Amino acid sequence: MTEKVYGGIETGGTKFVCAVGTTPDNLIKTQFTTTTPDESIKKAIDFFKNNTRHKQLSAIGIASFGPLDLDKNSPTYGYITTTPKDSWSDISIVEKIHSRLNVPVVIDTDVNGAALGEQVWGAARGLDIFIYLTVGTGIGGGGMVNSRLMHGLLHPEMGHIRIPHDWQRDPYRGCCPYHGDCLEGLASGKAMELRWGQSPEKLPSNHPAWELEAGYLASAISNLIYTISPQRIIIGGGLMKNPDLMSAIHRKVVKDLKGYIRSEAITESIDRYIVAPALGDLAGVVGALELAKRINQEI
Amino acid sequence: MTEKVYGGIETGGTKFVCAVGTTPDNLIKTQFTTTTPDESIKKAIDFFKNNTRHKQLSAIGIASFGPLDLDKNSPTYGYITTTPKDSWSDISIVEKIHSRLNVPVVIDTDVNGAALGEQVWGAARGLDIFIYLTVGTGIGGGGMVNSRLMHGLLHPEMGHIRIPHDWQRDPYRGCCPYHGDCLEGLASGKAMELRWGQSPEKLPSNHPAWELEAGYLASAISNLIYTISPQRIIIGGGLMKNPDLMSAIHRKVVKDLKGYIRSEAITESIDRYIVAPALGDLAGVVGALELAKRINQEI
Repeated sequence: MTEKVYGGIETGGTKFVCAVGTTPDNLIKTQFTTTTPDESIKKAIDFFKNNTRHKQLSAIGIASFGPLDLDKNSPTYGYITTTPKDSWSDISIVEKIHSRLNVPVVIDTDVNGAALGEQVWGAARGLDIFIYLTVGTGIGGGGMVNSRLMHGLLHPEMGHIRIPHDWQRDPYRGCCPYHGDCLEGLASGKAMELRWGQSPEKLPSNHPAWELEAGYLASAISNLIYTISPQRIIIGGGLMKNPDLMSAIHRKVVKDLKGYIRSEAITESIDRYIVAPALGDLAGVVGALELAKRINQEI
Repeated sequence: MTEKVYGGIETGGTKFVCAVGTTPDNLIKTQFTTTTPDESIKKAIDFFKNNTRHKQLSAIGIASFGPLDLDKNSPTYGYITTTPKDSWSDISIVEKIHSRLNVPVVIDTDVNGAALGEQVWGAARGLDIFIYLTVGTGIGGGGMVNSRLMHGLLHPEMGHIRIPHDWQRDPYRGCCPYHGDCLEGLASGKAMELRWGQSPEKLPSNHPAWELEAGYLASAISNLIYTISPQRIIIGGGLMKNPDLMSAIHRKVVKDLKGYIRSEAITESIDRYIVAPALGDLAGVVGALELAKRINQEI
């Protein structure tokens, strides 16, 4: 009998990750740099064609940067919409892949994809309300409430909340083309690079950049705790490769909350409350694969 | 046959509202000033005893200020916990009412109660994801996601998010005893009174207080839109009695979002997106009654 497999694509601002398989232990995967929509999507399609010979590719899930149109009744369902990313605005990514591979295609945000991956296979197993944040070139957030992915009128865009801007220590105006000094404008990798004139990986761990970064992220995380009251917060993304950043966030979140939220999960074990993704960089593509497996369910 | 009725209590920082009945059209109600826990709870119990003779009081729902312990497995379930309100910390309101009336008692936050009331009878009918904010002496927020009330690790405490403090126009440091200039610290009725030296009802509608107030609330509302992506936001509470405040909020939210959220619900009809409670001041107590009616359901 032909082996039944699923496809997952994580489309990121800097790279595409594609995988074919059924579980994290049974995956063929590849990744490549995101370029133009046509070129990047063609590479993805070639990967799926080359790796599903003699197999039945049942569906493809996409976990994508956005904003996305996720309204199935909309004429632009499955489009990437107002992204500031060059040439990716108003791209019908679902249709482009569906028309070339002729299998059902489902899409959600990159962070919702990663959240689903972590709930099934990673750091959010057994939880029904949690947040997944990514802090890299950009900042995004998604998650689950009542064990279902967060959607709504559109979908969360947590990277664009506003937090207090520490003008005294940080005269940088912020880099969000829409909002200037929203969270992404102040605390994304791009903001760090523009503020300090070098890429974040090159900033030594005792550079004041990291204290400032941890402060902004802690402010945002406190807001998310007050707004959603999650059972856990998972933070992935390139900037979190700096191990000191996570512990600075732990300290600052507890400090910012000032004991108002009386929960031992926060006051006694913050290091198990705010955690890295257990699937690491694979959370997104594994989640995309899960989206494909559940294409006929409401999640 | 004995008429079957339910009881609802909205416990607010300034007043208690109690009702007996089955629907908003079939209610006996009363209200009185909140004083000490013992005295206020006794008045509520007397009201229910006096108004349920020859009737079957099936359950009581409480929509209360908080923070509350809503974890049914906790030894302090049904307690008001870390409130800064005099003498109301660590009060077991559920147990005090249950032991005197001997009927099942259920509790949720005042704003979740009001949200439920609005979903069943008011401005959120047919919606499955929306927010209910109250802006009065304090600020609180709750709502529904996937048609279920927002809970989580504890419950939302949206009044305590942080937003940019407009130091240039507003040197006032904020009045939250925990956080200083969080949303409640900057934009509650108490903050207005302390900042301007008179109660908000006495500030004329062309006073700069209202522009500042609208700006802070719009900032918070934008954050809620980015975080939860609700289909609608309902705002009740004493400060919203000023009709100009709502229209200033409408203008400022659209301006703050800068076209990033591409939804006609926001860009074309903000006055139907951010609205007053259709039940007015009764949202909370009607919601409390609904909590009682659904005491055996997960909501």
